[in-house]
This record gives sequence, structure tokens and C-alpha cells, in this order.
Amino acid sequence: MDRIPILKVGDCLLVTIQVDMHDELAMSLQEDLTSQIARYGSRGVLIDISSLEIVDSFIGRMLANIAAMSRVLDAQTVLTGMQPAVAITLVELGMALPGIKTALNVERGMQLLQEYMDEGPEPEETDGSEA
Amino acid sequence: MDRIPILKVGDCLLVTIQVDMHDELAMSLQEDLTSQIARYGSRGVLIDISSLEIVDSFIGRMLANIAAMSRVLDAQTVLTGMQPAVAITLVELGMALPGIKTALNVERGMQLLQEYMDEGPEPEETDGSEA
Repeated sequence: MDRIPILKVGDCLLVTIQVDMHDELAMSLQEDLTSQIARYGSRGVLIDISSLEIVDSFIGRMLANIAAMSRVLDAQTVLTGMQPAVAITLVELGMALPGIKTALNVERGMQLLQEYMDEGPEPEETDGSEA
Repeated sequence: MDRIPILKVGDCLLVTIQVDMHDELAMSLQEDLTSQIARYGSRGVLIDISSLEIVDSFIGRMLANIAAMSRVLDAQTVLTGMQPAVAITLVELGMALPGIKTALNVERGMQLLQEYMDEGPEPEETDGSEA
């Protein structure tokens, strides 16, 4: 297997990560995901990691990169199904994943994305000029 | 990885098969899937095999088994994302997957399941007593 499938569900793209990631696979996932966001005009990306029992700094960085790329393309990333041990590891590694929203499962993640799409993007932080 | 994640999306359960199946993994998938159909009262099962480039008779049998188990539990199975080469192989193996509906991608598969859920199950074939 050389590609992780990306499933289009409504306005979202859904990715389930089940296998150990390596450089090449992570690169191809980033390429596929960004091109599909552009092609379908997707506003949300759901990444399910419920089958990952270990997350190292490589995967953490990859997730942060995907979220940053999606944001630039005007799509919100939600990470779902994180196991408790993975949360512990991520924080211990110093990767609190800023900019990535999380949800307990795919269903809640989709609700979160739907709310985001209904509301539009969060207002940019201003430097107080509106206060 | 010892389990394939099953994602609950609305009234459906979504499974993406990305890795080579072996006996134990297939058994645990069948167990997890049937128990989740029962727990959530799901009416539909979507199995995405878009990342499978080879399907052998073992996987064909497993898919047929899952569809049969789901049917007994009143859920319809839809197989999505089959690659052309896989379709050729399946028919050459003599496995035309009766009882499994197929769709080109997850989105169409969900439409198919939604239609099935709106309409209710297909009428059982009678022996002509109504004719």
C-alpha cells in the first residue's frame, strides 16, 4: 500500500490512519489531501487516528503540517479518536497540536466541522483596534 | 495494528480496508462490526476498498461473510471504491459478490444506503402467491 485513501463525505474529507507512517507515505498523503481540498473545495478535513496506539514526533509534526496546509486552503482540520495514551505522549513530547481541533469520535468531529462551516471562519485576532 | 477502525457516520458504519487482511484481523473485524451494528442499530455498512490493489478469494469470502452477517442484523452492505483490476479478479475467481451492493465512491455509497433506509428493505421474493 503506497497511498492512504481519502474519502469525500459531504463537504469534508475523511482520512483514517491505520498504518505506520513513513516519510514517503506522509508526503503522498499531504499531496493528495491538498489537491483534493482544492479540487472539491472542501471546508473540512477529518483525520481519525483511533487505531494508532503510538504517536511519535514524526506523526505529530505531520499532523500539524496537514492542519497548517489545510488552513491556508481555508479548510479546518479535526483530529478524532485519539487514545488517552497518545494524548499523554503528545503532550510529553511537547506537541500540544495548536491549531488542530480534536473530537472524541468521527460523529462529533463532523458536528464540529458543520458548526465551523455554518459559522464561517473564526475572526482573526486583531491588535485591539476594535476595542 | 490489530484492529481495523469502524467509524460511525450517521446511521452508517464506515470501514476502510487499507492493510493486508489475515485470519485474525478478519475475525476481529467481523466481531467488531456485528457488535457495533447491534449497539448502534445501524442500518448500513460502507466498506471502502479503494486502496486495495489485489483482492484474493480470502478477502472476497470475508466481504461476502460480512454482508451476510449484516443482512441478518438488518443492515445493508455497500462496497465502495473498487479498482477496475479488482473487479476483473473477483469475477475471474468466480466471486461476483451476490448480495453486496457496490458504488463508485463513498459519497454515492452513502446515497445508496440513504435510499435503502428511506425505502425500507426490499420485499422478499414470494413464490408467486401474490401474482
